[in-house]
This record gives sequence, structure tokens and C-alpha cells, in this order.
Amino acid sequence: MRIVFLGTSAGRPTKTRNVTSVALLLGRHNRFWLFDAGEGTQHRLLASKLKLNKLERIFITHLHGDHLYGLPGLLTSRSYFEGAGPLRLFGPPGIREYIDCAFKTSEAHLDYELDIVEIEAGTIAEDEGHKVEALELEHRIRCFGYRVTERPVPGQLDLAALARLGVPSGPLFGKLKRGEDISMADGTAVRSAEVVGPPIPGRTVAILGDTTPCANAVMLGKDADVLVHEATFAAGMEEKALAYGHSTVRDAAGIAAEAGAKRLIVTHISSRFDDEAVARMIDEVKDVFPNIEAAEDFYETDVAKN
Amino acid sequence: MRIVFLGTSAGRPTKTRNVTSVALLLGRHNRFWLFDAGEGTQHRLLASKLKLNKLERIFITHLHGDHLYGLPGLLTSRSYFEGAGPLRLFGPPGIREYIDCAFKTSEAHLDYELDIVEIEAGTIAEDEGHKVEALELEHRIRCFGYRVTERPVPGQLDLAALARLGVPSGPLFGKLKRGEDISMADGTAVRSAEVVGPPIPGRTVAILGDTTPCANAVMLGKDADVLVHEATFAAGMEEKALAYGHSTVRDAAGIAAEAGAKRLIVTHISSRFDDEAVARMIDEVKDVFPNIEAAEDFYETDVAKN
Ligand SMILES: [Zn+2]
Ligand SMILES: [Zn+2]
Repeated sequence: MRIVFLGTSAGRPTKTRNVTSVALLLGRHNRFWLFDAGEGTQHRLLASKLKLNKLERIFITHLHGDHLYGLPGLLTSRSYFEGAGPLRLFGPPGIREYIDCAFKTSEAHLDYELDIVEIEAGTIAEDEGHKVEALELEHRIRCFGYRVTERPVPGQLDLAALARLGVPSGPLFGKLKRGEDISMADGTAVRSAEVVGPPIPGRTVAILGDTTPCANAVMLGKDADVLVHEATFAAGMEEKALAYGHSTVRDAAGIAAEAGAKRLIVTHISSRFDDEAVARMIDEVKDVFPNIEAAEDFYETDVAKN
Repeated sequence: MRIVFLGTSAGRPTKTRNVTSVALLLGRHNRFWLFDAGEGTQHRLLASKLKLNKLERIFITHLHGDHLYGLPGLLTSRSYFEGAGPLRLFGPPGIREYIDCAFKTSEAHLDYELDIVEIEAGTIAEDEGHKVEALELEHRIRCFGYRVTERPVPGQLDLAALARLGVPSGPLFGKLKRGEDISMADGTAVRSAEVVGPPIPGRTVAILGDTTPCANAVMLGKDADVLVHEATFAAGMEEKALAYGHSTVRDAAGIAAEAGAKRLIVTHISSRFDDEAVARMIDEVKDVFPNIEAAEDFYETDVAKN
């Protein structure tokens, strides 16, 4: 998995930071998901290596404009891309009416199937590769955080053990790896557990919407490989952050520490802070959570393999 | 007056052209108006010298997404700019419902007064400086073109004649210039017409929405100093253009010639054409209307003084 930040500003775009959007690359065939789609997200995609026909799911955290207004244009532009398959859009109740209204006004028609899912807290999507869970956060309007967990993958084959047991390479290796016990031509039984290491747990990425510090933020970030958390304000502005339903960078660090996350990347940074101020903000809270970084637009990072 | 092209693409943004928006600078204090606001118009403004608090009016030609989807974000971002006064938004019926829906969904509030005017054909705005007229064009949905005319300004004072007549410089010059006849201290009468040249006619700029060639396009462009006309397709694609409610560059040139416009600037160019193709498209129709140019994003041009 790889995370690409497309927009890292709060409220409005600046010359260097666009309003919020985060892409999650799923590793194969450049497939990706989007979390939020502020105005200009499709423009950021045009300037990146990501192609709209490889976008399979969109998750909207909440319906504030800086997370939402890029959606109608992105959805209609996707029709221009060859091979654009069905798209699922997840978001808080109200998102369907918004899309319906924008499309009705502009008489927009899509050349692909759009499936809009108005979510409630819980497991909102499951497939062979991933599970996606959503929990409500604490913001001025209803807002969700998302937790994406890869399914565990089978452990490594112990090639030395297989050689010792005389298992010929080929289809039997696959069976053992998938957890099946086998019998060889000479009748010898080999149990999968003997020759396959323990399953490798999937990675977890938590991408949260706007929020003040809350228990659900900790739940979503629990032991996460990467926690993406907002940090609208600098440490010391906690009162203001709370009043507006936001977090400071110290709040975000505290959540990451409490959750036992491995890495914290903060985004959704107020336009009042320039690059230097952001660097200072991060340094100030390394005592709370050392493995913290601030995202900037087009920042890409791999989620380390377990 | 000065025209700044902020977006010159049709349908969707490309790496170099954003979707449609044109700014008209009114000459003093960097005040400007916008015509259309495709997604990312506020980003184009950020990259230009234009500031949202100097934006006084927006005119939307029609409600297709590539002319409209930038509006909610631009309007909400304008609240961040100090000294942002009232804003008037003109557009086809339906624009109010669109804005209401976007703002309701996102719980947006503006820090300034927004006056939405759903227009019909005719004179839609008049002030000391300008008159704005709108006429319907022929597109797939209801679409308007706008014609902005400066008020005539008083002619030049004939300083030689004033000296000969013995008029002392000062307040009397102003009265004469404003068209008033005067009497001097010694009782000599001086008529304004004797010492002031003919009024200088105001300039006219016509900015049209998407359209197939039609009589109203000619009316709007009549003797215009600058006609801004769409040219979605290249010459030879007239049948396709007609089917989609658009014009070719040859159609646009024909309208400019018929209207007797002084200059034609084409915009809203399909993303299929690269810079080289656009240059070729223009060359091909110079026989129809020689004073033609293609706009590109950030192209700025003065409207020559009369
Ligand atoms: Zn928010
Ligand atoms: Zn159109």
C-alpha cells in the first residue's frame, strides 16, 4: 500500500496546498481509492501518475466544502477515461442528495455505474483484499474516520523443510501455502503448519476526517501502520481547535500515542502556516509522538510491509 | 478594460488548460468581473494577480458543470479575504437552487452579502460605468451570452480654443467638459460644444457561452471591440459541433465577420487539440476573419481604447 497526498490544506486552497484529498494505492495495476475530494482534486490527479479510470472507491469523511466540492467534476471527468468501470462512493447521509442536485442542475450523465452508499458506523466494505471500517468523529457536522485493513496473507514456505520432507516443487507448494495438508505420491502426509510460517498480518491505514480528540479516533488508529490525522492548528491553540471541531498537531500526536500507531502523518493544515511554521509545529510535539511527519501536496509514502 | 483568461478548455481540465472562466478587469483599483467559474477557477485566481475581494460580479453563461462547478468553492473562499464587499451573481434560472443545495449540504456561510439574480434576456445590469446585456444562445441547455458596454466618456477639451476665448483654467473647464455652457466673469458666454470634442464612445466586449452559430451571437458581437467566442472544434467538424450545440473555429470566425467585431478571441477548446493543433486551427480560418486569436490560460489582453 502507498499513500499519496493530493491536498493538505484546511478550508481553502493556498498557492502550494490544495484542499483535502488523500489517495490510497492498493499495490496492483495502479488501482486506488480516494479519501475526500476537495475542489481541484481532479486537477491534482492530472498532475500525478494516478488515472481516474483506476479509481475504484471514494470515501468522503464529511460534507464540508473543502472535502467535497471536487466530487461532481471528478465524477463527470472520469467518464472521459477509457475503461472506467463501476465506482463506489461512500459518504455520510446527504451525499446522494448533493450529487443528485449537482448532476440535475448541470444535466450531467456518467458513462459508468456510480453506486452511492450512505454509511453508518461499522464495517462498510469487505472484499478479498481489504476490510474498511468507519467510526464517527467529533466535528461541527457529522464526520467519519476510515480504517482500512489488509487481509492477512499466508506465511512464507519453509523451503529447507520442504526439501527435507521431499515435497516436489509445483502445485503441492501452493496447497500447503494456502493452509491445506497434503499426501505425496508415496503416501507421506505433510501438514501445512509444518512447512508454512505464521500468517503475515495485513497492514492497517487509518484516514480520519476533521475532528477534535475523541475515543473513536483512538479506536480507528489502534496499532495502525499509518494514521493520517488532521492538524489544523499548532500546539497551544487547543482551545480554538476545540471550539471549531478541530485538532492541534499536539492533539493528533496524543491520539497517535494513545492508539499505539506506528506512524502519524498530519494533514489539513491551516493556510496561516507556511512551510517553516509547519516544520516548527512538528518539532514541538516529537516528545509526544516521535514518528510524526507533516504531509504536503504530492507527498508519497509506502506503508511498510509487515 | 483588460481580459484575463483563467480557463480555456471544454468539458474537462487538461494539464495546461482549466475549464472555462474569463475575468474582465474594469481598469480601476483592480476591480473585476468573472464570466463562468469552472472547477478550479479560485485556484487560477490564486496563481494570478487577481484577488477575490476585488471581484464584484459573476456572470454564468449556463449551468453545465465545466462552467459552474467552481462556484461554491470560490464563493466560500471569498469570505477569507479581507474587505470582501457584496457580490452579485447573475446566471440562468436554476443557479439559485444549485448554490442553495451546495451550501445547505456543506453548511456553508458567507461573511459577505451574495445577491443572486436569475436572468432573462435583456439589459441585466446598469451602473455609471457600464451596461450589461444578455441574450440567449443555442446550446443543449439554456445558455446566455453577455455584452458589456462602457458608457461614453466626454470628449477632449480643446485647450487652444479655451485660451483663445480667455477661459481661465479651473472649475469652468470641468463644467464645459461635462457639457455645461458657461458665462465668464466679464459676461462672455462659452458653449461647451465650442471647446469640447465629440464624446468618446465606450468600448464593447462580448463574452459568449457555449453555442452553435445563431443570430443572437451576431447581435451580441455587433461592432464589438472584442468578441470572446467558443470554438470547441476545428474547421470541418461543423456537423459534430452542431450536434453537440457547439461551434467550430470557422463558425466563430463567421460570427465575428458577420457582426463586424474588431477582434475575435476563441476559447473553450476541446482537450483533443494540443497547442500545435490549435495554432493550425486558427491559421485555417484567417481568410474568414483575420483578427483572430486562440486564448490560453493566463492570456491577458487590453481592450484598445477608442
Ligand atoms: Zn470540516
Ligand atoms: Zn456547455
